Amino acid sequence: MVILVLNCGSSSIKYQVIDMVSARENTLLAKGLVERIGIEGGVITHKPTDKPRLELTTDIPNHTKGIDLIFKAITDEKSGVISSLADIKAVGHRVAHGGDFFADSVLVDDKVISQIEELIDLAPLHNPANLKGIYAVKELCPNIPQVACFDTSFHQTMPARSFIYGLPYKYYEQYRVRRYGFHGTSHKFVAKVGCELAGLDINKAKVVTCHIGNGASVAAVDCGKSIDTSMGFTPVDGLLMGTRCGDVDPGALTYIADKEHMTGNEIWGMINKQSGVLGISGLSSDMRDIESAAAEGNERAKLALDVYYYRVKKYVGAYAAAMGGLDLVVFTGGVGENDPSFREYVCSNMEFLGLEFDADINRGLRGKDTIISKPGSRVKAALIATNEELVIATDTFSIVNNCR
Amino acid sequence: MVILVLNCGSSSIKYQVIDMVSARENTLLAKGLVERIGIEGGVITHKPTDKPRLELTTDIPNHTKGIDLIFKAITDEKSGVISSLADIKAVGHRVAHGGDFFADSVLVDDKVISQIEELIDLAPLHNPANLKGIYAVKELCPNIPQVACFDTSFHQTMPARSFIYGLPYKYYEQYRVRRYGFHGTSHKFVAKVGCELAGLDINKAKVVTCHIGNGASVAAVDCGKSIDTSMGFTPVDGLLMGTRCGDVDPGALTYIADKEHMTGNEIWGMINKQSGVLGISGLSSDMRDIESAAAEGNERAKLALDVYYYRVKKYVGAYAAAMGGLDLVVFTGGVGENDPSFREYVCSNMEFLGLEFDADINRGLRGKDTIISKPGSRVKAALIATNEELVIATDTFSIVNNCR
Repeated sequence: MVILVLNCGSSSIKYQVIDMVSARENTLLAKGLVERIGIEGGVITHKPTDKPRLELTTDIPNHTKGIDLIFKAITDEKSGVISSLADIKAVGHRVAHGGDFFADSVLVDDKVISQIEELIDLAPLHNPANLKGIYAVKELCPNIPQVACFDTSFHQTMPARSFIYGLPYKYYEQYRVRRYGFHGTSHKFVAKVGCELAGLDINKAKVVTCHIGNGASVAAVDCGKSIDTSMGFTPVDGLLMGTRCGDVDPGALTYIADKEHMTGNEIWGMINKQSGVLGISGLSSDMRDIESAAAEGNERAKLALDVYYYRVKKYVGAYAAAMGGLDLVVFTGGVGENDPSFREYVCSNMEFLGLEFDADINRGLRGKDTIISKPGSRVKAALIATNEELVIATDTFSIVNNCR
Repeated sequence: MVILVLNCGSSSIKYQVIDMVSARENTLLAKGLVERIGIEGGVITHKPTDKPRLELTTDIPNHTKGIDLIFKAITDEKSGVISSLADIKAVGHRVAHGGDFFADSVLVDDKVISQIEELIDLAPLHNPANLKGIYAVKELCPNIPQVACFDTSFHQTMPARSFIYGLPYKYYEQYRVRRYGFHGTSHKFVAKVGCELAGLDINKAKVVTCHIGNGASVAAVDCGKSIDTSMGFTPVDGLLMGTRCGDVDPGALTYIADKEHMTGNEIWGMINKQSGVLGISGLSSDMRDIESAAAEGNERAKLALDVYYYRVKKYVGAYAAAMGGLDLVVFTGGVGENDPSFREYVCSNMEFLGLEFDADINRGLRGKDTIISKPGSRVKAALIATNEELVIATDTFSIVNNCR
């Protein structure tokens, strides 16, 4: 059963075509990227697994045109991976914000669309783009079932003690201000795969998942359910990120706003776009640049790294306490998968928790699912390459086949 | 050697007269409170340890008059505890903010005064009041040595990874925006006394100190040095408090500011005065009220308690990870000393850390220094009654006697 997975941004669409043999068996047929939608010089890059690559530059005024190009590419005579659009049995969409409406992925109908629309206010950059993809598929192929998979839904199992902020309660009631968390699809996936690799039953395990990339979050996954996560009402909360500040004294922000005569919007821009490792280092938001500069002795780059690493370590400890124990720590995301020194920092001196890190196995390790704790370690650590598209395809398969 | 300890607020002065026999031996001679300074109907309440209490109502236009009343009370014929002011060998002041100027208590001279003045901007409510006390003593008794003990100085040992926020670095350089931490005098005291009670060498121990009252903070004290703490640039950071929000997504604040058209000042007021357990419960900022209401089944009071307790537990885990281990958890402050259920919540299900809590010893325990972990527990827990005045007197004694 062929499923098209779409991740629609404001000016881009990432896609994968996945053949789901069952909920556990699948083949990636193609992946690709549509860029510069609504901007001059649009381009689609189509990469089939076993066929010649296709690249086409053409103006792409909107998402409907972008998805039409994807349809043409995947059915192309030379580079196509299916013979006709009728082969696509379902489309799975990544949707940023499901608020507290969606605790799971869901078959898209008019009610679901209006709920995702209602949540635009909470994700003004992302939900509208995700919706454009849903509208476009509806327009082009009204009979294909569509499934929405939310970045937030995995965290809907959090208890109130984790999701209620210490603010006047009316803001929760009036404006839905609470912790939602993001990266849910990734946390869910790597917790499951990590438990399998470590020989743990996820329904009994206490897992901390670290999705660490340019955006970054940690989750406490207790018996398969998210009970806490570091991103909050917005993705700016928690860890230090490329350009996002993460945890910060809110009193520091009102102080800076006062000194600099900044509006709320300007503060928003500062904490989201000019902070994080970029803000501390003054150099770059890319961890590779920061690590190079730190290796060359740049003090502010070293400091940015130090803060970045240290916060993850604290969250691992905090979530172990929240769960009353720890069985497994999982690393994923661009940095989590590709930065051995990051993983070593977080897992070092954690013997008091029962975690004995295997620095030898970890050294030079990139992107390959591996247990990185020593064989006898009571608490395990693992690198697991995330695959959010596969989770979306699996959820879509399960929902369309009514086998959840 | 008699030392007068002063804690000057904007309209009040708390004081203690302590006879320091040595840095470790002392006798409390009297304590008292001056209230309603600059407000009609000022009052001084003087409570000597072994003599009749004295209470006097009179207009107290300023701090100089307030301190003059203290001088009269402590040398009073009936209620006095010293025969003349010449018996006071030094005055120790609690000073809220020492910025990064002061890593320890210090003998007050003109340079110190101007540095405390320079820090008014960081503690606009507290440093001016503390300074009024210093000016008044200087005016009334120019020859008595004065010592300033800062709420922040114990935390000056924090490494940069703990004190640098993920904000543009220029705000640290231009405005000194960084984590300072507060309650330092208390964290320092209870870490020391806790180690003594638990039979640990503080120079080798990993201690988490929880100063939990209406204001609340946690500190990681590694080998006697603070390496991290939950309060930050301001005391609003970290734990949930009576009316302060503690950790919150800064993006939630810019969202609320936008919805409610709130200025930075209004946000400051909201997060400092209308949040915390008051904000969640809608009932009270006093934990005793919240516990009563929760016991009667009030759901929002239960939620406020749950968030309040849960955050402390997470910080204990986070700081254990930060130190790479844990030997002792200390509880102090109004709630920490007097609320057995709070301590039980934080210490329960912490066996994975090696902490076996003794619920029987803890039950009903209030205000008395006690080990509350089981005898064989690898990690200890203790209730230690804080005594900030005694730390100030001890520091003052040591500095004046040049024996530091």
